[in-house]
Amino acid sequence: MIATAVAPLRIGVIGVGRIGRMHAELIAHQVPGAALGAVYDAHEPAARTVSADLGVPAAAGVEEILGSDLDAVAICSSSDTHVELMIAAAEAGKAVFCEKPVSLELAELDRALEAIERAGVPFQIGFNRRFDPGHASVQEAVSSGAVGEPHLVRISSRDPAPPPLDYVKSSGGLFLDMMIHDFDMARFVTGREVVEVFARGAVRIDASFAEAGDIDTALVTLVHEDGCLTAIDNSRRAAYGYDQRVEVFGSEGMAVSENPHGHGGAVVTATGERRPALPYFFLQRYLPSYIREWSAFVAAVKAGATPPVSVGDARAPLVIGLAALRSLRESRPVRLEDVKAA
Amino acid sequence: MIATAVAPLRIGVIGVGRIGRMHAELIAHQVPGAALGAVYDAHEPAARTVSADLGVPAAAGVEEILGSDLDAVAICSSSDTHVELMIAAAEAGKAVFCEKPVSLELAELDRALEAIERAGVPFQIGFNRRFDPGHASVQEAVSSGAVGEPHLVRISSRDPAPPPLDYVKSSGGLFLDMMIHDFDMARFVTGREVVEVFARGAVRIDASFAEAGDIDTALVTLVHEDGCLTAIDNSRRAAYGYDQRVEVFGSEGMAVSENPHGHGGAVVTATGERRPALPYFFLQRYLPSYIREWSAFVAAVKAGATPPVSVGDARAPLVIGLAALRSLRESRPVRLEDVKAA
Amino acid sequence: MIATAVAPLRIGVIGVGRIGRMHAELIAHQVPGAALGAVYDAHEPAARTVSADLGVPAAAGVEEILGSDLDAVAICSSSDTHVELMIAAAEAGKAVFCEKPVSLELAELDRALEAIERAGVPFQIGFNRRFDPGHASVQEAVSSGAVGEPHLVRISSRDPAPPPLDYVKSSGGLFLDMMIHDFDMARFVTGREVVEVFARGAVRIDASFAEAGDIDTALVTLVHEDGCLTAIDNSRRAAYGYDQRVEVFGSEGMAVSENPHGHGGAVVTATGERRPALPYFFLQRYLPSYIREWSAFVAAVKAGATPPVSVGDARAPLVIGLAALRSLRESRPVRLEDVKAA
Amino acid sequence: MIATAVAPLRIGVIGVGRIGRMHAELIAHQVPGAALGAVYDAHEPAARTVSADLGVPAAAGVEEILGSDLDAVAICSSSDTHVELMIAAAEAGKAVFCEKPVSLELAELDRALEAIERAGVPFQIGFNRRFDPGHASVQEAVSSGAVGEPHLVRISSRDPAPPPLDYVKSSGGLFLDMMIHDFDMARFVTGREVVEVFARGAVRIDASFAEAGDIDTALVTLVHEDGCLTAIDNSRRAAYGYDQRVEVFGSEGMAVSENPHGHGGAVVTATGERRPALPYFFLQRYLPSYIREWSAFVAAVKAGATPPVSVGDARAPLVIGLAALRSLRESRPVRLEDVKAA
Repeated sequence: MIATAVAPLRIGVIGVGRIGRMHAELIAHQVPGAALGAVYDAHEPAARTVSADLGVPAAAGVEEILGSDLDAVAICSSSDTHVELMIAAAEAGKAVFCEKPVSLELAELDRALEAIERAGVPFQIGFNRRFDPGHASVQEAVSSGAVGEPHLVRISSRDPAPPPLDYVKSSGGLFLDMMIHDFDMARFVTGREVVEVFARGAVRIDASFAEAGDIDTALVTLVHEDGCLTAIDNSRRAAYGYDQRVEVFGSEGMAVSENPHGHGGAVVTATGERRPALPYFFLQRYLPSYIREWSAFVAAVKAGATPPVSVGDARAPLVIGLAALRSLRESRPVRLEDVKAA
Repeated sequence: MIATAVAPLRIGVIGVGRIGRMHAELIAHQVPGAALGAVYDAHEPAARTVSADLGVPAAAGVEEILGSDLDAVAICSSSDTHVELMIAAAEAGKAVFCEKPVSLELAELDRALEAIERAGVPFQIGFNRRFDPGHASVQEAVSSGAVGEPHLVRISSRDPAPPPLDYVKSSGGLFLDMMIHDFDMARFVTGREVVEVFARGAVRIDASFAEAGDIDTALVTLVHEDGCLTAIDNSRRAAYGYDQRVEVFGSEGMAVSENPHGHGGAVVTATGERRPALPYFFLQRYLPSYIREWSAFVAAVKAGATPPVSVGDARAPLVIGLAALRSLRESRPVRLEDVKAA
Repeated sequence: MIATAVAPLRIGVIGVGRIGRMHAELIAHQVPGAALGAVYDAHEPAARTVSADLGVPAAAGVEEILGSDLDAVAICSSSDTHVELMIAAAEAGKAVFCEKPVSLELAELDRALEAIERAGVPFQIGFNRRFDPGHASVQEAVSSGAVGEPHLVRISSRDPAPPPLDYVKSSGGLFLDMMIHDFDMARFVTGREVVEVFARGAVRIDASFAEAGDIDTALVTLVHEDGCLTAIDNSRRAAYGYDQRVEVFGSEGMAVSENPHGHGGAVVTATGERRPALPYFFLQRYLPSYIREWSAFVAAVKAGATPPVSVGDARAPLVIGLAALRSLRESRPVRLEDVKAA
Repeated sequence: MIATAVAPLRIGVIGVGRIGRMHAELIAHQVPGAALGAVYDAHEPAARTVSADLGVPAAAGVEEILGSDLDAVAICSSSDTHVELMIAAAEAGKAVFCEKPVSLELAELDRALEAIERAGVPFQIGFNRRFDPGHASVQEAVSSGAVGEPHLVRISSRDPAPPPLDYVKSSGGLFLDMMIHDFDMARFVTGREVVEVFARGAVRIDASFAEAGDIDTALVTLVHEDGCLTAIDNSRRAAYGYDQRVEVFGSEGMAVSENPHGHGGAVVTATGERRPALPYFFLQRYLPSYIREWSAFVAAVKAGATPPVSVGDARAPLVIGLAALRSLRESRPVRLEDVKAA
């Protein structure tokens, strides 16, 4: 809501489904220093609606966006298009923001990242949780030394409700679709690479996950390069809302990021104290993180600096996720170097 | 962020200083079913900037807005213009939203409210805190009977920093400028009218308040019609941020609205547990309340219903405030009927 | 539970009803450096039971205790006996601990305190809440300067259930029986004397309070010597347990003492988060305060120092309470100097 | 503190070092329906001191206690004496309370438990944490169905400071000495047996743990019989105090037991909100659990019922611990049936 004297960074959004529309709205109205330049969607009516609502042109094709004088593109289309779009955008010299995942295949991801590096364009991957003020405060407590050397990390991510089965089938599964955020978080808050993964999963919510070859509940142990140990648990359905917590225990103390309640109200009676449930929608929980994510991207591109979650951060969580998958299948701890070598 | 099939309520904003610009932005982007139709400000450059930023016309005068086909006006100009604008808007048949206060003088306020009632237009006064989810949950707990009959109420409102001295001098003083929100809150959460006021005040922060004939710290006792007792404390400067709490204690329990923290992070070390300070800006604290306030206004006007904080709610807090002023000056409890009679 | 090499302070307990028996048990088993020397009760079977349970002699009369070689006496008999027992104990050269109140009449209280001062014996009055770790932390935050100059104080004391009507009738009423603890607390946490009182009360719980000439709900404003303002609310019945909170707001911040929960358990479901009710019994809430109270008395007497809550602290809350009574009856603020002069 | 009309259960305590003395004091003064009959310690001065302080006889030998008419014995001597004492006490027909562990060797433990079962005497193992009100509330939430089927469990146990190295060397190591409580907790709160263990450990605090062949930090995954997954983390040194948390996430919600603070005080300033550190001593944290543990034992023995934490509960955690040790050494998940078979 602050007017900026200098020219805004003009961004085109490719893919304006649920998440893409949200990015378009934030860029249009809530990100200082940014402007929405155009939108595109393979499903034309979606693009037309967003175009009308936000008062920006709907491009006829991706080429129109890449060939324009826009400064940057946000790739928010379906995951299987990310690699080719990243390559094309890089070659067009655009700054690139890409929703996760780049790809579910390491070779493909590497091909996209190589195009980014070859073109030398700014790149940021959409691990928005790094920009959540609570989670970020944990990272700051660790990096500032306030909690000393990290010894133990606990991360819980539990969604209010499972996605549709069709989505599950093409999602890459719980490790690559959902826990990938937590693999990123483990690296982010500790500042330490992961060297080993042990995974256990279960189908506890809905047998259709098993039919889709997936799990709905998981507990994973990560060993970091310095011996720090991380436990991540995931569930596809938390009855009480969107549960997202991070904790780093270190030699000098502990930093935690707890769930913010919907509001500060409580009712206290003879049967105890009652507080509201957690938010049920990711936007209620993470809206500030998306705004901060875009602010960081815009600031970095304008300053000619590397955006804060870039090439290396896009690759590492996929390697951990692939190791988790192998661990689950082979019922043993898996070293990351074995995945990388593969 | 939800598209509405039916035509939006088109609103013109009169006065786009700090608070008016915020209302204009919310109407433009964040209130479902509403559209910003035009803006006006006596200070022309302010109107031009908002017009350009939000892509709506800047009216040349108030008459242009009142003579247009807009459905409603938001009166956000300086307080001393509110009465005449309300009367003009009512006579023009617009639905009227007015920032508090309507007036610091009871006769003037009555003149404005009579115009509203004569014209039969929808009217809402800007006591936004009623729409804060936490405070609203307290009201709901009382009205639903969850905490029984209310016996004791505690309200604390403490601002992060005092306003400029120039503002203080024309503000009507702490009771009419700041505690007026709490007088409204006491009526709102209990559902009971106030019959008596006892006020004590002090200059504890800055001697310039005394020079301005004002106080910066106050503690007020309200007696409600049924014997319920309310304590309100106010401070113009809380070192730790924007502190806003409400509590109703009743025969069956207690409902509270505590301050939400900026985020859910904490650091725990040998010296204890540290959580973040409270927000320092009213927008961080009360943004959801403003959006909900507008949604309620829009819904009521569209439904042909009386908006939720209307004529009676605009008058009662001023009477309480005037009684508080008299109590402070005369060092005795003051009955509201004495003020009303005056 | 720590053995002490030096001789323990040997204490006789006069009056072993509910509160006296508790003191006797604490002295016998949980106060380092103290020993229970004897017990006495006008109701002989009570004394015999405690004597048997704790393995100490039951004295045949008060004289037997006062004439013995015990170091100190704890006066825990009915309130109307306190003055004479204090005088007798002082004249017998014993260190004196007396449960509150010394007397409901100022002249009688002065007579007892004069006897203490004449004899030069150590004296402590049983305002145990000063020794509650949470409330004490508030006082420490103020006296250390951590929250700056105190501006506003909030104290809530709400009992889980009203006492029997017979007790109410002879108790001196809510101000002298219950709120007296809060008058003490206001002086304790601010370190500032009170100069004016305004009181409002109501019968909200049970009409029999009105029949007994008493109230069951009250809200009192105190003005301190430096302008600091205190709000105290009391209720004889809180449905959710024993509610005891203290808050000091000052120029640099705020110190609070909130209710500790019975335990750290919570259940979170789709309907929200549920935590346990507060303790319902004063012993669950305040046991640590009683142990710390005795430890402070024992330490002071052994060191030849004045105990921490002594003559002046026994008198001031009674004066405030009498002013509150007058304020309630006369419906006006009352200066303490008017009560003192009376 | 309540007198019991019926005869108390008379208990002899064998071993009155730190933990044994605590048990003796609790039995003597704080457990309703129990009486301390005698104490014994191989280190005679320890027994004499406790005998004098608590006013009970010091036995000359274990035989004197076992040959007496005492109803029960509490075995609190050094761990390597537990098996023989349990067998002797069982053969003497005493009800037996034994501090954990019975033994670090499964065959020895089985020999002791067989003696208990052969004699048919009541037996309880000292897993006191089951009686912590917060942890117990988690178990109740699960067993009542309030949180549905358990899916994920998180348990953190972190001690304020490591034990002396000499103790570490003979303790059986972190899994059998410290995490054994958490293995018990995982079974207790879920009501489900464990079938598989995967363990990772590290020396993060002090290299002398490595020299002692031990670890000081660990993260363990348990798989329960129904697929429920448990993560347990342990650290021998938490800078901020005694950290003990349990959480069960299930199909209908979540039950947690968080750390109670030392008191309810907080200080809020411009730099944030500060709350006290956690207790640093196990007695401050777990005293209520020990009193409740004894009350449960006394009630069961008097009622002729099986005590609540008995033979099966003494064995299962040792099997899990031995599996964890093997998992750590062999770097693979270990099935409990393999340990049992061994």
